Amino acid sequence: MIVTVTPNPALDITYGVPALRPHTSHRVASVHEQAGGKGVNVARVLHGLGRRTTAVLPLGGSTGAVLRADLDRAGIACLGVPLAAGTSTRRTVAVVDAVDATVLNEPGPELSAEDWTALRAAVRGLLPTARALVLSGSLPPGLPGDAYADLVRLAHEQGVPVVLDADGAALTGALAAGPTAVKPNAVELRRATGIADPLRAAHALVDAGARAVVASLGPDGLLAVTPDGSWRARLPPEAVVRGNPTGAGDAAVAALAVALADRTPWPAALAHAVALSAAAVQAPYAGRFDPQAYDGHLPLVRVTPATPFAGSAPSD
Amino acid sequence: MIVTVTPNPALDITYGVPALRPHTSHRVASVHEQAGGKGVNVARVLHGLGRRTTAVLPLGGSTGAVLRADLDRAGIACLGVPLAAGTSTRRTVAVVDAVDATVLNEPGPELSAEDWTALRAAVRGLLPTARALVLSGSLPPGLPGDAYADLVRLAHEQGVPVVLDADGAALTGALAAGPTAVKPNAVELRRATGIADPLRAAHALVDAGARAVVASLGPDGLLAVTPDGSWRARLPPEAVVRGNPTGAGDAAVAALAVALADRTPWPAALAHAVALSAAAVQAPYAGRFDPQAYDGHLPLVRVTPATPFAGSAPSD
Repeated sequence: MIVTVTPNPALDITYGVPALRPHTSHRVASVHEQAGGKGVNVARVLHGLGRRTTAVLPLGGSTGAVLRADLDRAGIACLGVPLAAGTSTRRTVAVVDAVDATVLNEPGPELSAEDWTALRAAVRGLLPTARALVLSGSLPPGLPGDAYADLVRLAHEQGVPVVLDADGAALTGALAAGPTAVKPNAVELRRATGIADPLRAAHALVDAGARAVVASLGPDGLLAVTPDGSWRARLPPEAVVRGNPTGAGDAAVAALAVALADRTPWPAALAHAVALSAAAVQAPYAGRFDPQAYDGHLPLVRVTPATPFAGSAPSD
Repeated sequence: MIVTVTPNPALDITYGVPALRPHTSHRVASVHEQAGGKGVNVARVLHGLGRRTTAVLPLGGSTGAVLRADLDRAGIACLGVPLAAGTSTRRTVAVVDAVDATVLNEPGPELSAEDWTALRAAVRGLLPTARALVLSGSLPPGLPGDAYADLVRLAHEQGVPVVLDADGAALTGALAAGPTAVKPNAVELRRATGIADPLRAAHALVDAGARAVVASLGPDGLLAVTPDGSWRARLPPEAVVRGNPTGAGDAAVAALAVALADRTPWPAALAHAVALSAAAVQAPYAGRFDPQAYDGHLPLVRVTPATPFAGSAPSD
């Protein structure tokens, strides 16, 4: 079983409109609503892969109840830590038009010390049966800055590998605890290190404590620095797909968690992560993927040793 | 007691952002959520005026429950007609930045024949104790096109005056039933009649069956064609206020309903409607108004006979 933790989950609402025109009124053509937050998306991908998973998350208010009902309906096990009365799970609204999505993220509710204690206890209770732990997304106000570091250490005590997907202080604050893998995107990698070159930046995160760094670089695929070597993994340019990039990183995280749970060697792990990510881009909502596309992409992924020269593509 | 009917209510969500930039992500700085829909806004204004009111509306799902809880909290009596399981009250999202609001209106749930029967019975049951009936806003899918006409006739049977605030077919389909007053805005007036001149258009609605027409013309105030005469009512240009126009029309409707309930003569009714409307513009959310502003505006409103010459302001 793979445990995912989403400290700042959201009820994700997607509105389809022909074109978003600021300062006008719009009739929304389509409404889609689903449980969201990065760790929830990972759990949905894991469930889609047929892997047992439990999503741990704080839940509150009517939005929290809707989120839980959506997970129940999808058959995804959910361990919800109830927030104090009057505290509601946040929403996100994505307005999708012909060009792209415009996203409005509500601030998350502030968690109390009791909420954090309950969340931590929930994770601790699941670790003895867990084969991997996924920590995803922002830390809501009220959580200690070292919350992820604390959970990484709990996992290590149980010998459970950890994938951390976070930004800024939530990422850097957990490095010293030695997460098994961190998965920043290009922007997060640069922000965490101040280094423009992704390979140098990834090495900096390893120097700071991450055991492996798998950076997602959009259409350029993944760049991994691991104890066993460094690789780039990507689809050939002609196979790169267009679609909805939301949740592509979460699909990569799900693939990495499966690989860590199964002790898959890194090159194969990266190939699966690239293929699953591309299959997620082809699905309309975060956490979904096209299984046939996943199967189709997998043999096309090229995994090559990463050279320390920024921007130079390895020759085949 | 004044009954308001809102066939297509909404949970109104307002997001504050510094600037809405299409195709980017935004952290929402402030979230406000309240029961909405035009008739609900009217009920809120009536409650703010200290008038007894009951809001009749279909309610469903978690959004419906939040809407009802908000009315309960505000102390506004609500007769909710429960929708079938799986059917949810719609939301609207207004993204307010430094320039103006950008509004996203979810489509309303489709009402069944049973829902309409229950809504109609709820209104009928309240009419014997009602002193005015307010019918506000769009008709959701599933309601008969003559739904408002039907409710107007029920009110007439009980001798209860009716204010109708609707657009398009919901407005024109009810005219033959003889609503006591209709309150289109300039766009709705033109759309319903195809006539550009507001005074001529208002006369056309009277010819079609409305007993009185009170058109709201934004900063130009109100234009009324009634059985007792025709008037323009407005604040002098130097007293016209800026702010949030959402709900200004609903405030005018509330004032008209009070005037009909109290048998206030039309010129005084129009003065109250203009003053209350302006006080609503100065409040941040629909259904609210600044009572001091209302008192302050009232003596400033000028009510003058409406002349049949389009665009010519009456001289003082």
